Amino acid sequence: MSDQEKAKDEKSGVSRRDLLGSTATVAAVAGIAGAAGGAGLTSLSARAFAQEAQPRAKAQTAEVRPGDLDEYYGFSSSGQTGEIRIMGIPSMRELMRIPVFNRDSATGWGLTNESRKILTEGLLPATRKFLETRGGSFVNGDLHHPHMSFTEGTYDGRYIFVNDKANCRIARIRCDVMKCDKIIEIPNASDIHGLRPQKYPRTGYVFANSEHIIPMPNDGSVLDEPAKYWSVFTAVDGDTMKVAWQVLVDGNLDNCDADYQGKYAFSTCYNSERGVTQADMTSAERDWVTIFDIKRIEEAIKKGDYKKMEGVPVVDGRHGSRYTRYIPVANNPHGCNMAPDGIHLALAGKLSPTVTLIDVRLFDQLFNDKIQPRDAIVAEPELGLGPLHTAFDGRGNAYTTVFIDSQVVKWNMDKAKRAFKGEKVDPIVQKLDVHYQPGHNHSSMGETKEADGKWLMSLNKFSKDRFLPVGPLHPENDQLIDISGDEMKIVHDGPSFAEPHDCTIVHRSKVNPIIVWKRDDPMWEDIRQQAAKDKVKLEEAANVIRDGNKVRVYMYSMAPAYSLDKFTVKQGDEVTVTITNMDDVEDVTHGFTIVRYGVMMEISPQQTASVTFIADRAGVHWYYCQWFCHALHMEMAGRMIVEPHAA
Amino acid sequence: MSDQEKAKDEKSGVSRRDLLGSTATVAAVAGIAGAAGGAGLTSLSARAFAQEAQPRAKAQTAEVRPGDLDEYYGFSSSGQTGEIRIMGIPSMRELMRIPVFNRDSATGWGLTNESRKILTEGLLPATRKFLETRGGSFVNGDLHHPHMSFTEGTYDGRYIFVNDKANCRIARIRCDVMKCDKIIEIPNASDIHGLRPQKYPRTGYVFANSEHIIPMPNDGSVLDEPAKYWSVFTAVDGDTMKVAWQVLVDGNLDNCDADYQGKYAFSTCYNSERGVTQADMTSAERDWVTIFDIKRIEEAIKKGDYKKMEGVPVVDGRHGSRYTRYIPVANNPHGCNMAPDGIHLALAGKLSPTVTLIDVRLFDQLFNDKIQPRDAIVAEPELGLGPLHTAFDGRGNAYTTVFIDSQVVKWNMDKAKRAFKGEKVDPIVQKLDVHYQPGHNHSSMGETKEADGKWLMSLNKFSKDRFLPVGPLHPENDQLIDISGDEMKIVHDGPSFAEPHDCTIVHRSKVNPIIVWKRDDPMWEDIRQQAAKDKVKLEEAANVIRDGNKVRVYMYSMAPAYSLDKFTVKQGDEVTVTITNMDDVEDVTHGFTIVRYGVMMEISPQQTASVTFIADRAGVHWYYCQWFCHALHMEMAGRMIVEPHAA
Repeated sequence: MSDQEKAKDEKSGVSRRDLLGSTATVAAVAGIAGAAGGAGLTSLSARAFAQEAQPRAKAQTAEVRPGDLDEYYGFSSSGQTGEIRIMGIPSMRELMRIPVFNRDSATGWGLTNESRKILTEGLLPATRKFLETRGGSFVNGDLHHPHMSFTEGTYDGRYIFVNDKANCRIARIRCDVMKCDKIIEIPNASDIHGLRPQKYPRTGYVFANSEHIIPMPNDGSVLDEPAKYWSVFTAVDGDTMKVAWQVLVDGNLDNCDADYQGKYAFSTCYNSERGVTQADMTSAERDWVTIFDIKRIEEAIKKGDYKKMEGVPVVDGRHGSRYTRYIPVANNPHGCNMAPDGIHLALAGKLSPTVTLIDVRLFDQLFNDKIQPRDAIVAEPELGLGPLHTAFDGRGNAYTTVFIDSQVVKWNMDKAKRAFKGEKVDPIVQKLDVHYQPGHNHSSMGETKEADGKWLMSLNKFSKDRFLPVGPLHPENDQLIDISGDEMKIVHDGPSFAEPHDCTIVHRSKVNPIIVWKRDDPMWEDIRQQAAKDKVKLEEAANVIRDGNKVRVYMYSMAPAYSLDKFTVKQGDEVTVTITNMDDVEDVTHGFTIVRYGVMMEISPQQTASVTFIADRAGVHWYYCQWFCHALHMEMAGRMIVEPHAA
Repeated sequence: MSDQEKAKDEKSGVSRRDLLGSTATVAAVAGIAGAAGGAGLTSLSARAFAQEAQPRAKAQTAEVRPGDLDEYYGFSSSGQTGEIRIMGIPSMRELMRIPVFNRDSATGWGLTNESRKILTEGLLPATRKFLETRGGSFVNGDLHHPHMSFTEGTYDGRYIFVNDKANCRIARIRCDVMKCDKIIEIPNASDIHGLRPQKYPRTGYVFANSEHIIPMPNDGSVLDEPAKYWSVFTAVDGDTMKVAWQVLVDGNLDNCDADYQGKYAFSTCYNSERGVTQADMTSAERDWVTIFDIKRIEEAIKKGDYKKMEGVPVVDGRHGSRYTRYIPVANNPHGCNMAPDGIHLALAGKLSPTVTLIDVRLFDQLFNDKIQPRDAIVAEPELGLGPLHTAFDGRGNAYTTVFIDSQVVKWNMDKAKRAFKGEKVDPIVQKLDVHYQPGHNHSSMGETKEADGKWLMSLNKFSKDRFLPVGPLHPENDQLIDISGDEMKIVHDGPSFAEPHDCTIVHRSKVNPIIVWKRDDPMWEDIRQQAAKDKVKLEEAANVIRDGNKVRVYMYSMAPAYSLDKFTVKQGDEVTVTITNMDDVEDVTHGFTIVRYGVMMEISPQQTASVTFIADRAGVHWYYCQWFCHALHMEMAGRMIVEPHAA
């Protein structure tokens, strides 16, 4: 679908009837006639959405009929599962998984050379050494916050950026192919928590919070001396995926966000006490939101007012610094959400029943010491027990999850400001029970200037009895709420595996993935270079090249066959198998699995992928296609013959 | 819910309104009051389904309203993802993932000592050696066929058995806790494909097919000599999870099933040619279904008529053996499905447009040489291009997926038999387009004698344009079809990540998981024994025990805290952290993650889990709970202090 078609489609709520059933059948039958040599399926290039816009029904439902398309993409973090999930909204169906910090058996993420490079190239030297005896890369992650790149205050469809709390990493997902292409480890940081991209003029920076305070450097030279523990705020360059700069700060940073002017970023800080026990961390009456002046920090970097630590410039932004301001807010604040109006920043109280609303237009005065920190606060409505995160509808309303009360509270920002000034007005519009204990919530396009106020997702941490029992480990419950009318309505309970910590809801007009790889994709540039040295043409390869005890096997695949139905190596050889999928029909993905060798990878149409292993098991080892591709899929196999060492 | 309540519930289509919302809120508020020391949530023990049965609407829909429960469990294999997915049907929501052959970051499957034992203890010696330099266990798998254990011809809710095609394993999942408890590697086999449990008198045996033919032993002594390649049919004892016996056979075995009398098992064989190339494998006009006489094989084992190979008894069942019969069927048969009537076995033609229907009551005569193999065939209807699998509705109808035509064909077995005898009658009732290229299908309770003919799931291998585009890798499409009426109707398109190869649909009355672990569960028996030696009481542990350079750290967790907020070890120590989750409230799962250490695990209510690692990274390393458990969840953390080696 062209951008133009998408633009037309946008906001029309177009649904698409199944026009393609009969075409597909004909195509497939045609395919089998040429089964011996060719693709089993003919291209279905026609991907057009039906042009007839259907009128939107008044009440929104989660139902998307068979053959119809969802209107929104949901990019759902999976928490400690470590992957990204692409959902269709409003149907709440999981459309795709993108492995990032986890391992994935199906695609070979962590097994292929291409994925191993992404998983290892951004590691810090000390971590690289630590992982030497552990297979070279982490196998776990804790993916909290997925956010799309911005241009001029709204999503631009280029990337999704995500953080790994467990192993201090930030990763990038290419939205054209929906695969992770870069992962970097953040130095000087303990667990990376909050993450948000710069909204304006573009991303640009990806801002990230280090949560727990630690010694710097954390090499054992300082141990149980919490007075010497600090935290950092990090700006990553989203284009190069390198750390641009860090700011040394006091206390544990929690969530962060950025303004719509490109001037400031902000982080909630829940441990201004700089404690290391729970009692210490919760002892103060108030903690902070820390404001970062991006221009001043950039100037500091230019003029050299920083210390280089673990290879990156670190500006001192501790209390009293000219690069930061610390605004006292209620104890242990959590959510940090910039409203689409470009004016209001909402900070959820967590241990206070309030949300603090700040006018970011006052930050110039604050940094110029014209006003006091608390003067930036314009409202502080009391909403319920355990406010965690706030979403917006673009119509002046805010929606805050209150964890302990198990509710989403809809409140009006203007009324809250009037009440703050002393007017007798109740800002609360509605309290809605959710099931149960909500954490993040997210509204459709709600973190952009194009917030459209149609859907709200409440990511509930407990599901208890909402679904059939499945043992001691329960699913979470992602509830979809219709916020298009005056009253919020729950339309769907969505069980989910651990733990969709956060989600963004992006209109489909903003995302434009390709459906078949381009042969010149940079993902397999290393293969291209090696093949050139080996004088192998990937698209028609059927070569076994020996280079000492290294053997490079090049094949192509075309349903239902590999170009090699056997190859022979010697026991102990280092074998690299490179396969190019020459099928160019949408959805004809092949795979490559070697039996009892722990080798498995995905090769989608027009993709090239490779895997390297030591052939230290003699005998006859079948390889087969594990991605159902054709009526003769079961017969798409071959033999790796491993000649034993001389006795 | 008690069994009685479930029985009442069964077939009534009961839906349950949300009666618990207000209770939950009150409970949670109560929880925060005692936040410092106790659980943040009060027990919601009331799990009762509402007793008022609501009349079933005439037309079935996939919609399950918020708060209502699904009527069926779907146990969906995930193909090359290597996990089991529990679905709710008809809503088609994924309720839970059970890691089996894959790695799972969230639960620590592959990281915890308990999971590592399950992943390694059943490996063959040669594989154990092969994996020594590869982290000790396979990280990938190809999980094709999930089937529940049977007692007297129907599901008994004890176990799900599954196969791994990639690394030749069979695993068992306990349905009380929905976790994998045993994995064994199958000797003498290439890729394990078809798997089915014995239906009668009980499971008993789990039957499994080895697909590709290989030399035996496959140690390099025989290489490119296909004439010396064979395959095996394996019976695993489902209670002990040990191989009971194997049968040496000709050709590639594909899918298998068993009868309702406990007398015979059967496997389709798609490579009677015993070829090693696709051309060879498809050259013959006919292949086989191989019939195994269980009694005769058991007698052979008793009287010693077998050869011991790789530690297991292998009976010779090659062509001409008294233990097997080979019935010629059309070229490259695939699906092998026993009808709930206990009489008919359906064998899908794949490269022939036919399904072959066999009367299993004739097998006594066949084995006693009273009839010829083809005499057992009672129908062979022509259905369309690429018949793969057949499901049943318990009303005499069969539903066969035809891959190339992208259809499900409903046909009547009785009419097919009459047509086979020459009567002019069309057995085909309806052909329904599915989207696209279906593989397995499965009807509700359809592989048991209690087939209820309500739902059919068609697991389609291609989705092409049925969902929003998500890049070159597409989801599959699991379509739910209402088969309760005269006409099949598609009610839901369910996208799914690679590749729900097969699925079973089990009425909820058959499954009765517990929702909180029992403290005496055998899963952590090893921990119990070590704790006894260490004189540690797991339920109240806060101990750090040094034993040379081994350090055993015992804690318990109770929201929102661990019993230790720090512990100190020396660089290079082998550290085992054991945690007991003393929360006994449903759904209050905790986790344990150590930052930048690659350590992560799940600890559900009343569970004990452990993880062992080398503390070779000096400094201050925070550990935290990665499973959202409480309003003070972020503050549930502590420090592992690793003292550096002396310089």
